[in-house]
Amino acid sequence: MTLLRNFTFDELKLGQIGEYQRQVTERDVILFAAASGDVNPLHLDAQYAARTEFGERIAHGMLGGAFVSAAIALVLPGPGTVYLEQNLRFKLPVRLGDQICVRLEVTELIPRRHYVKLDCKVTNQDQKTVIQGNATVIAPTEKQQLESPTLPDIGI
Amino acid sequence: MTLLRNFTFDELKLGQIGEYQRQVTERDVILFAAASGDVNPLHLDAQYAARTEFGERIAHGMLGGAFVSAAIALVLPGPGTVYLEQNLRFKLPVRLGDQICVRLEVTELIPRRHYVKLDCKVTNQDQKTVIQGNATVIAPTEKQQLESPTLPDIGI
Repeated sequence: MTLLRNFTFDELKLGQIGEYQRQVTERDVILFAAASGDVNPLHLDAQYAARTEFGERIAHGMLGGAFVSAAIALVLPGPGTVYLEQNLRFKLPVRLGDQICVRLEVTELIPRRHYVKLDCKVTNQDQKTVIQGNATVIAPTEKQQLESPTLPDIGI
Repeated sequence: MTLLRNFTFDELKLGQIGEYQRQVTERDVILFAAASGDVNPLHLDAQYAARTEFGERIAHGMLGGAFVSAAIALVLPGPGTVYLEQNLRFKLPVRLGDQICVRLEVTELIPRRHYVKLDCKVTNQDQKTVIQGNATVIAPTEKQQLESPTLPDIGI
Protein backbone atom coordinates (compact mmCIF):
# COMPACT_ATOMS: atom_id res chain seq x y z
CA MET A 1 0.00 0.00 0.00
CA THR A 2 1.39 3.36 -1.03
CA LEU A 3 0.11 6.59 0.42
CA LEU A 4 -0.42 9.57 -1.86
CA ARG A 5 -0.08 12.98 -0.21
CA ASN A 6 -0.44 16.40 -1.75
CA PHE A 7 0.89 19.88 -1.06
CA THR A 8 -1.74 22.59 -0.83
CA PHE A 9 -1.01 25.96 -2.40
CA ASP A 10 -0.25 27.44 1.04
CA GLU A 11 2.29 24.70 1.77
CA LEU A 12 4.26 25.20 -1.44
CA LYS A 13 7.47 27.23 -1.43
CA LEU A 14 9.56 28.73 -4.22
CA GLY A 15 12.39 26.34 -5.04
CA GLN A 16 10.57 23.32 -3.60
CA ILE A 17 11.61 20.09 -5.34
CA GLY A 18 9.69 16.90 -6.09
CA GLU A 19 11.12 13.76 -7.70
CA TYR A 20 9.61 10.73 -9.43
CA GLN A 21 11.79 7.83 -10.51
CA ARG A 22 10.96 5.04 -12.89
CA GLN A 23 12.67 2.44 -15.03
CA VAL A 24 11.44 2.36 -18.62
CA THR A 25 10.45 -1.15 -19.64
CA GLU A 26 9.32 -2.79 -22.86
CA ARG A 27 6.00 -3.31 -21.09
CA ASP A 28 5.62 0.48 -20.59
CA VAL A 29 6.26 1.04 -24.30
CA ILE A 30 3.73 -1.61 -25.39
CA LEU A 31 1.07 -0.31 -22.97
CA PHE A 32 1.68 3.30 -24.05
CA ALA A 33 1.37 2.23 -27.72
CA ALA A 34 -1.93 0.49 -26.92
CA ALA A 35 -3.30 3.41 -24.87
CA SER A 36 -2.42 6.08 -27.43
CA GLY A 37 -2.71 4.05 -30.63
CA ASP A 38 0.83 5.15 -31.50
CA VAL A 39 2.17 2.00 -33.18
CA ASN A 40 5.09 3.78 -34.86
CA PRO A 41 7.55 0.93 -35.64
CA LEU A 42 10.44 2.94 -34.14
CA HIS A 43 9.08 1.89 -30.75
CA LEU A 44 7.84 -1.62 -31.57
CA ASP A 45 9.84 -3.17 -34.42
CA ALA A 46 13.50 -3.92 -33.62
CA GLN A 47 14.44 -4.52 -37.27
CA TYR A 48 12.93 -1.21 -38.39
CA ALA A 49 14.50 0.67 -35.46
CA ALA A 50 17.95 -0.78 -36.23
CA ARG A 51 17.92 1.01 -39.60
CA THR A 52 17.13 4.43 -38.06
CA GLU A 53 19.54 6.99 -36.63
CA PHE A 54 18.73 5.64 -33.16
CA GLY A 55 20.01 2.14 -33.99
CA GLU A 56 17.52 0.42 -31.68
CA ARG A 57 13.94 0.70 -30.40
CA ILE A 58 13.37 3.80 -28.28
CA ALA A 59 10.46 4.81 -26.06
CA HIS A 60 7.81 7.20 -27.36
CA GLY A 61 8.92 10.75 -26.51
CA MET A 62 5.51 11.38 -25.01
CA LEU A 63 5.95 8.46 -22.60
CA GLY A 64 8.54 10.75 -21.00
CA GLY A 65 5.83 13.43 -21.01
CA ALA A 66 3.55 10.94 -19.27
CA PHE A 67 6.18 10.48 -16.54
CA VAL A 68 6.27 14.29 -16.04
CA SER A 69 2.49 14.28 -15.76
CA ALA A 70 2.65 11.40 -13.25
CA ALA A 71 5.19 13.33 -11.15
CA ILE A 72 2.85 16.32 -10.97
CA ALA A 73 -0.23 14.20 -10.22
CA LEU A 74 1.41 12.01 -7.58
CA VAL A 75 4.25 14.03 -6.02
CA LEU A 76 4.22 17.82 -6.51
CA PRO A 77 1.66 19.21 -5.91
CA GLY A 78 -0.02 15.74 -5.97
CA PRO A 79 -3.70 14.67 -5.86
CA GLY A 80 -6.20 17.49 -6.43
CA THR A 81 -3.92 19.38 -8.82
CA VAL A 82 -5.52 20.71 -12.02
CA TYR A 83 -3.24 20.54 -15.07
CA LEU A 84 -3.36 23.70 -17.20
CA GLU A 85 -0.33 23.71 -19.45
CA GLN A 86 2.76 21.64 -20.25
CA ASN A 87 5.69 22.43 -22.49
CA LEU A 88 8.12 19.64 -23.39
CA ARG A 89 11.40 19.76 -25.31
CA PHE A 90 12.60 16.31 -26.32
CA LYS A 91 16.38 16.56 -26.16
CA LEU A 92 17.60 12.96 -26.21
CA PRO A 93 15.90 9.62 -26.83
CA VAL A 94 14.69 7.55 -23.89
CA ARG A 95 15.87 3.96 -24.33
CA LEU A 96 14.33 0.75 -22.99
CA GLY A 97 15.90 -0.02 -19.64
CA ASP A 98 16.74 3.63 -18.89
CA GLN A 99 16.40 4.67 -15.25
CA ILE A 100 14.51 7.95 -15.47
CA CYS A 101 14.23 10.70 -12.88
CA VAL A 102 11.65 13.50 -13.23
CA ARG A 103 12.67 16.51 -11.15
CA LEU A 104 10.09 19.24 -10.59
CA GLU A 105 10.87 22.63 -9.07
CA VAL A 106 8.41 25.33 -8.04
CA THR A 107 9.42 28.49 -9.92
CA GLU A 108 6.40 30.73 -9.45
CA LEU A 109 3.44 30.96 -7.05
CA ILE A 110 0.48 33.11 -8.07
CA PRO A 111 -1.86 33.40 -5.07
CA ARG A 112 -4.88 34.92 -6.84
CA ARG A 113 -5.92 31.70 -8.57
CA HIS A 114 -3.54 29.24 -6.85
CA TYR A 115 -1.50 28.95 -10.03
CA VAL A 116 1.88 27.27 -9.69
CA LYS A 117 4.63 27.14 -12.31
CA LEU A 118 7.02 24.22 -12.27
CA ASP A 119 10.32 23.65 -14.00
CA CYS A 120 10.39 20.04 -15.25
CA LYS A 121 13.57 18.15 -16.03
CA VAL A 122 13.82 14.48 -16.96
CA THR A 123 17.26 12.87 -16.70
CA ASN A 124 18.51 9.34 -17.36
CA GLN A 125 20.97 7.15 -15.45
CA ASP A 126 23.90 9.03 -17.07
CA GLN A 127 22.58 12.33 -15.68
CA LYS A 128 21.82 13.43 -19.24
CA THR A 129 18.73 15.59 -19.68
CA VAL A 130 16.31 13.78 -21.99
CA ILE A 131 13.34 16.15 -21.62
CA GLN A 132 13.15 19.70 -20.35
CA GLY A 133 10.03 21.76 -19.93
CA ASN A 134 7.70 23.66 -17.69
CA ALA A 135 4.18 23.25 -16.41
CA THR A 136 1.41 25.49 -15.11
CA VAL A 137 -1.07 23.95 -12.68
CA ILE A 138 -3.70 24.96 -10.14
CA ALA A 139 -2.54 23.66 -6.78
CA PRO A 140 -5.05 21.98 -4.47
CA THR A 141 -6.44 23.94 -1.52
CA GLU A 142 -7.53 20.89 0.47
CA LYS A 143 -5.02 18.58 2.09
CA GLN A 144 -5.34 14.99 0.89
CA GLN A 145 -3.76 11.79 2.09
CA LEU A 146 -5.11 8.66 0.49
CA GLU A 147 -4.29 5.12 -0.45
CA SER A 148 -2.96 4.70 -3.96
CA PRO A 149 -5.53 2.88 -6.15
CA THR A 150 -4.53 -0.61 -7.25
CA LEU A 151 -4.57 -1.24 -11.00
CA PRO A 152 -6.21 -4.40 -12.35
CA ASP A 153 -3.82 -7.12 -13.51
CA ILE A 154 -2.62 -6.58 -17.06
CA GLY A 155 -1.24 -9.53 -19.02
CA ILE A 156 0.74 -9.14 -22.25
CA MET B 1 -3.46 -4.61 -42.06
CA THR B 2 -3.04 -0.86 -41.94
CA LEU B 3 -0.51 0.97 -44.06
CA LEU B 4 1.47 3.81 -42.53
CA ARG B 5 2.65 6.48 -44.97
CA ASN B 6 4.64 9.61 -44.27
CA PHE B 7 5.05 13.02 -45.86
CA THR B 8 8.62 14.07 -46.56
CA PHE B 9 9.64 17.66 -45.89
CA ASP B 10 9.44 18.45 -49.62
CA GLU B 11 5.88 17.11 -49.84
CA LEU B 12 4.57 19.22 -46.95
CA LYS B 13 2.67 22.44 -47.65
CA LEU B 14 1.69 25.35 -45.43
CA GLY B 15 -1.89 24.83 -44.24
CA GLN B 16 -1.76 21.06 -44.79
CA ILE B 17 -4.09 19.21 -42.41
CA GLY B 18 -3.82 15.78 -40.80
CA GLU B 19 -6.44 14.14 -38.58
CA TYR B 20 -6.41 11.28 -36.08
CA GLN B 21 -9.62 10.06 -34.47
CA ARG B 22 -10.03 7.88 -31.43
CA GLN B 23 -12.61 6.96 -28.85
CA VAL B 24 -11.34 7.19 -25.27
CA THR B 25 -12.05 3.99 -23.39
CA GLU B 26 -11.61 2.84 -19.81
CA ARG B 27 -9.02 0.43 -21.21
CA ASP B 28 -6.95 3.36 -22.56
CA VAL B 29 -7.03 5.03 -19.15
CA ILE B 30 -5.96 1.86 -17.31
CA LEU B 31 -3.15 1.15 -19.80
CA PHE B 32 -1.96 4.76 -19.65
CA ALA B 33 -1.95 4.60 -15.84
CA ALA B 34 0.10 1.40 -15.98
CA ALA B 35 2.55 2.75 -18.59
CA SER B 36 3.15 6.07 -16.80
CA GLY B 37 2.66 4.98 -13.21
CA ASP B 38 0.09 7.75 -12.82
CA VAL B 39 -2.45 6.09 -10.53
CA ASN B 40 -4.10 9.37 -9.50
CA PRO B 41 -7.54 8.26 -8.20
CA LEU B 42 -9.26 10.94 -10.31
CA HIS B 43 -8.75 8.59 -13.26
CA LEU B 44 -9.22 5.23 -11.55
CA ASP B 45 -11.54 5.52 -8.53
CA ALA B 46 -15.18 6.36 -9.34
CA GLN B 47 -16.07 7.19 -5.71
CA TYR B 48 -13.12 9.57 -5.34
CA ALA B 49 -13.83 11.20 -8.72
CA ALA B 50 -17.50 11.73 -7.83
CA ARG B 51 -16.43 14.06 -5.00
CA THR B 52 -14.25 16.26 -7.28
CA GLU B 53 -15.28 19.21 -9.42
CA PHE B 54 -15.40 16.84 -12.42
CA GLY B 55 -18.10 14.65 -10.84
CA GLU B 56 -16.83 11.47 -12.51
CA ARG B 57 -13.62 9.75 -13.60
CA ILE B 58 -11.81 11.60 -16.37
CA ALA B 59 -8.91 10.60 -18.59
CA HIS B 60 -5.37 11.72 -17.75
CA GLY B 61 -4.77 15.07 -19.49
CA MET B 62 -1.55 13.68 -20.89
CA LEU B 63 -3.44 10.80 -22.54
CA GLY B 64 -4.76 13.55 -24.82
CA GLY B 65 -1.13 14.61 -25.29
CA ALA B 66 -0.37 11.01 -26.25
CA PHE B 67 -3.08 11.18 -28.93
CA VAL B 68 -1.41 14.34 -30.33
CA SER B 69 1.91 12.53 -30.36
CA ALA B 70 0.28 9.55 -32.13
CA ALA B 71 -1.19 11.86 -34.78
CA ILE B 72 2.25 13.29 -35.52
CA ALA B 73 3.95 9.88 -35.55
CA LEU B 74 1.33 8.13 -37.69
CA VAL B 75 -0.34 10.79 -39.85
CA LEU B 76 1.47 14.13 -40.27
CA PRO B 77 4.33 13.98 -41.05
CA GLY B 78 4.23 10.27 -40.05
CA PRO B 79 6.97 7.63 -39.68
CA GLY B 80 10.52 9.01 -39.65
CA THR B 81 9.52 12.25 -37.93
CA VAL B 82 11.76 13.42 -35.05
CA TYR B 83 9.84 15.06 -32.20
CA LEU B 84 11.54 18.21 -30.88
CA GLU B 85 8.99 20.15 -28.88
CA GLN B 86 5.36 20.02 -27.80
CA ASN B 87 3.27 22.59 -26.00
CA LEU B 88 -0.13 21.54 -24.59
CA ARG B 89 -2.86 23.63 -22.97
CA PHE B 90 -5.46 21.47 -21.23
CA LYS B 91 -8.69 23.41 -21.66
CA LEU B 92 -11.43 20.90 -20.83
CA PRO B 93 -11.44 17.41 -19.32
CA VAL B 94 -11.51 14.37 -21.60
CA ARG B 95 -14.19 11.96 -20.39
CA LEU B 96 -14.40 8.20 -20.81
CA GLY B 97 -16.34 7.47 -23.98
CA ASP B 98 -15.43 10.79 -25.64
CA GLN B 99 -14.87 10.65 -29.40
CA ILE B 100 -11.67 12.62 -29.84
CA CYS B 101 -10.30 14.22 -33.01
CA VAL B 102 -6.71 15.49 -33.19
CA ARG B 103 -6.33 18.03 -35.99
CA LEU B 104 -2.82 19.03 -37.03
CA GLU B 105 -2.04 21.93 -39.36
CA VAL B 106 1.34 22.83 -40.85
CA THR B 107 2.01 26.46 -39.86
CA GLU B 108 5.70 26.87 -40.66
CA LEU B 109 8.28 25.09 -42.85
CA ILE B 110 11.97 25.82 -42.19
CA PRO B 111 14.01 24.26 -45.04
CA ARG B 112 17.48 24.59 -43.51
CA ARG B 113 17.00 21.77 -40.99
CA HIS B 114 13.66 20.37 -42.22
CA TYR B 115 11.91 21.81 -39.19
CA VAL B 116 8.10 21.86 -39.32
CA LYS B 117 5.77 23.66 -36.93
CA LEU B 118 2.30 22.27 -36.41
CA ASP B 119 -0.76 23.73 -34.79
CA CYS B 120 -2.43 20.98 -32.71
CA LYS B 121 -6.08 21.02 -31.70
CA VAL B 122 -7.94 18.23 -29.94
CA THR B 123 -11.75 18.39 -30.00
CA ASN B 124 -14.45 16.12 -28.58
CA GLN B 125 -17.77 14.92 -30.07
CA ASP B 126 -19.39 18.26 -29.13
CA GLN B 127 -16.77 20.15 -31.19
CA LYS B 128 -15.37 21.59 -27.96
CA THR B 129 -11.61 22.11 -27.87
CA VAL B 130 -10.18 20.01 -25.04
CA ILE B 131 -6.47 20.56 -25.79
CA GLN B 132 -4.72 23.20 -27.87
CA GLY B 133 -1.04 23.41 -28.58
CA ASN B 134 1.76 23.40 -31.07
CA ALA B 135 4.60 21.12 -31.99
CA THR B 136 8.02 21.43 -33.63
CA VAL B 137 9.36 18.38 -35.46
CA ILE B 138 12.01 17.43 -38.00
CA ALA B 139 10.17 16.05 -41.01
CA PRO B 140 11.48 12.90 -42.68
CA THR B 141 13.44 13.23 -45.93
CA GLU B 142 12.87 9.63 -47.05
CA LYS B 143 9.49 8.43 -48.22
CA GLN B 144 8.17 5.51 -46.19
CA GLN B 145 5.22 3.23 -46.68
CA LEU B 146 5.06 0.30 -44.30
CA GLU B 147 2.75 -2.10 -42.58
CA SER B 148 1.59 -1.02 -39.17
CA PRO B 149 3.15 -3.22 -36.46
CA THR B 150 0.71 -5.47 -34.61
CA LEU B 151 0.68 -5.12 -30.83
CA PRO B 152 0.75 -8.25 -28.66
CA ASP B 153 -2.56 -9.19 -27.03
CA ILE B 154 -3.16 -7.32 -23.81
CA GLY B 155 -5.62 -8.72 -21.27
CA ILE B 156 -6.98 -6.72 -18.34
